[in-house]
Amino acid sequence: MIRKPILVVVSGPSGVGKTTIIKAVLAKRKDIIFSVSCTTRPKRPGEVHGKDYFFITEKEFKKMIERKEFLEWAEVHGYLYGTPRRFVEEAFSNNKSVLLDIDVQGAMKVMETFEDGVFIFVAPPSIEDLEKRLRKRKTEDERKIKRRLEDALWELRNIDKFQYLIINKDLDEAIYSLGSIVTAESIKVERLEDDVKRYKEEVLKDGRKG
Amino acid sequence: MIRKPILVVVSGPSGVGKTTIIKAVLAKRKDIIFSVSCTTRPKRPGEVHGKDYFFITEKEFKKMIERKEFLEWAEVHGYLYGTPRRFVEEAFSNNKSVLLDIDVQGAMKVMETFEDGVFIFVAPPSIEDLEKRLRKRKTEDERKIKRRLEDALWELRNIDKFQYLIINKDLDEAIYSLGSIVTAESIKVERLEDDVKRYKEEVLKDGRKG
Repeated sequence: MIRKPILVVVSGPSGVGKTTIIKAVLAKRKDIIFSVSCTTRPKRPGEVHGKDYFFITEKEFKKMIERKEFLEWAEVHGYLYGTPRRFVEEAFSNNKSVLLDIDVQGAMKVMETFEDGVFIFVAPPSIEDLEKRLRKRKTEDERKIKRRLEDALWELRNIDKFQYLIINKDLDEAIYSLGSIVTAESIKVERLEDDVKRYKEEVLKDGRKG
Repeated sequence: MIRKPILVVVSGPSGVGKTTIIKAVLAKRKDIIFSVSCTTRPKRPGEVHGKDYFFITEKEFKKMIERKEFLEWAEVHGYLYGTPRRFVEEAFSNNKSVLLDIDVQGAMKVMETFEDGVFIFVAPPSIEDLEKRLRKRKTEDERKIKRRLEDALWELRNIDKFQYLIINKDLDEAIYSLGSIVTAESIKVERLEDDVKRYKEEVLKDGRKG
């Protein structure tokens, strides 16, 4: 099957369930890999350095900014987050698609440089639902939850800048939707231009022989 | 989940396996229905009137053309094929997506009127493979097989006019691809414009209350 590596950016308010959806999709397919971001925020229980994030110091982070090693970086909720450029480039050269799990601000920065990227917004069914999820997580204090909800309102105003909208009401449906987007985008004729040309040449040549 | 009814047009050379792929996808989902076409070609063994096609006479067909009852119609391999307009309109008003299984000529006609439609080309891995499939079908004589192969070469030259390319090498993969396209297209932000506006209004209003 002709398939093209693509950059898939999954974004949306903090607490909306992006990570759960992404993990389920990645567990099932080998054609797409997760881009591990760098962050200066403290590790949460269960998180693994190099798998969930590269947990680095502010000093290290700033050095990477200076060396232009980030595709995008941003300060979110008081911490720095960044996507290492090298990771994406290496995956593409191995014909693998890359999935980024980043905040809305970061996603909008990536839009400027990756016009070919696929930008997906994951939204909660309601703000109340988002609040419930954030409280259930129990990793943040009241002040931080309030701040995340305020940010969410700004983020939700930017849905129109994205190409796809997944409303995370039913987890299985959301997982199927994300997988579907990755598959559908990778067989778009406009992405396959060179391959379609090659395919047509081969098939039509064979046709003349017969 | 916000979902929009869409017109999905599946096309490609005769014998490529479109019908098998389509039937498998339709069996699994309730949000999309098959548009039954009219044709003047004779019924093949196992085909059912009103399910696979409406098998009608040339006289009846021409009356429908006069009354402008077709979304598109065409002569293919010496027989008339047409898509009844009413069917698609009724499905849309019931919020159902519609799937058309039509030849490349017909699909290109539908492109002119349905700019919002999703156009998918199903191609064989090679012309030899297509020939094998046609011979296996055993429903046509040598002259007809030659004619279908000649048509296939013209059809394959028009892949670029379509939005998606499914190469039917592995049946399960082809089925998953078609289902993915339907799902992904139905959650595109550009299709959901009104719903996104409504969603944002509701969510942001709730946010202010809280």
